[in-house]
Amino acid sequence: MLKLRSSPASPFGRKVKISAAALGLSERIEVVATDTSAPGDPIRILNPLGKIPALELEDGTTLFDSRVIVDYLDFLAGGGKLVPVEAPGRFQELRAQALADGLCDAALLQVYETRLRDADKRSERWLELQAGKVERALKSLESQPPANLSRIGAIATACALGYLDLRFDGAWRSDHPSLVAWLEDFRAATPAFEATAPH
Amino acid sequence: MLKLRSSPASPFGRKVKISAAALGLSERIEVVATDTSAPGDPIRILNPLGKIPALELEDGTTLFDSRVIVDYLDFLAGGGKLVPVEAPGRFQELRAQALADGLCDAALLQVYETRLRDADKRSERWLELQAGKVERALKSLESQPPANLSRIGAIATACALGYLDLRFDGAWRSDHPSLVAWLEDFRAATPAFEATAPH
Repeated sequence: MLKLRSSPASPFGRKVKISAAALGLSERIEVVATDTSAPGDPIRILNPLGKIPALELEDGTTLFDSRVIVDYLDFLAGGGKLVPVEAPGRFQELRAQALADGLCDAALLQVYETRLRDADKRSERWLELQAGKVERALKSLESQPPANLSRIGAIATACALGYLDLRFDGAWRSDHPSLVAWLEDFRAATPAFEATAPH
Repeated sequence: MLKLRSSPASPFGRKVKISAAALGLSERIEVVATDTSAPGDPIRILNPLGKIPALELEDGTTLFDSRVIVDYLDFLAGGGKLVPVEAPGRFQELRAQALADGLCDAALLQVYETRLRDADKRSERWLELQAGKVERALKSLESQPPANLSRIGAIATACALGYLDLRFDGAWRSDHPSLVAWLEDFRAATPAFEATAPH
């Protein structure tokens, strides 16, 4: 059994869970609740960076981060399923994943600004810098969302949008109608998206 | 000609440059100086996240981030050179790259704390959180540095340590003698490391 250390709200953990479902591997993975803010949580031993998701393999190795875990799961499933082996498809998917992951990083940094700092240490300048990254990424996705709904670019994008819904009240929706429609298509095609929704 | 948008101090840009050299591709890449802090710099159009490195391909596509670029360069060189195709080597290298990249991210967040915030908005709590990630990653690398000096895990690790030398006065060196020796071995084996050193 593989052990996935994650938490329900993590967009990167959700990406791994949806990937596992798409690859038919969910039954081989036990999800272990993890609190990265607890100094005693084993995550800091398993992953020195103290981040989730992390995947414990049967040989004792722990893989991280989410991209490496997705690459591993795709390998277990025979390879080339979520990330094509050949160009140009391979690099379209990897680029789309990188854009979505970067959007998540910028959104997470805004959330951390409240969660991991005292109130008088919050910086509007920093928040605006991160919000600009999210805004430009959304604009780019609005004009060109990931075309193939069953690959990693789409999965990562859906998880990024789901995180904006969770933490920013879905404010992105009003200005990005094509992307809203795209996400509905993804949701309809991907039962694991709803099944992994944070509450 | 491929165009690499980067800056001399970027550890992720350095990783790409050393990778290109290791793969014999340096002659095909023109490096274009990029200032991510200038709102008018084309980087925000090429990469909505506004981050370097980014690689402009001949067909007009721009690839990011550094991991995707390295994957592309390895593909151009025939594949499986910096990142093996098969397990377990593949996942050893990808995990080592993720650890080194995460170390860099945590170091960069400490640098940004000074560079991108006003003085009264700096948080000791945040800085300690990031420093803890760097410290645990160094401890892990001290006991087990990347074994194969010509692959991506080693390249990424050397660039992370080079960034600590540049921005934190090499303070990591006193407590990590095995890692210091490892970096000397890497330097001796990798002419591009010295050639890409930031001044």
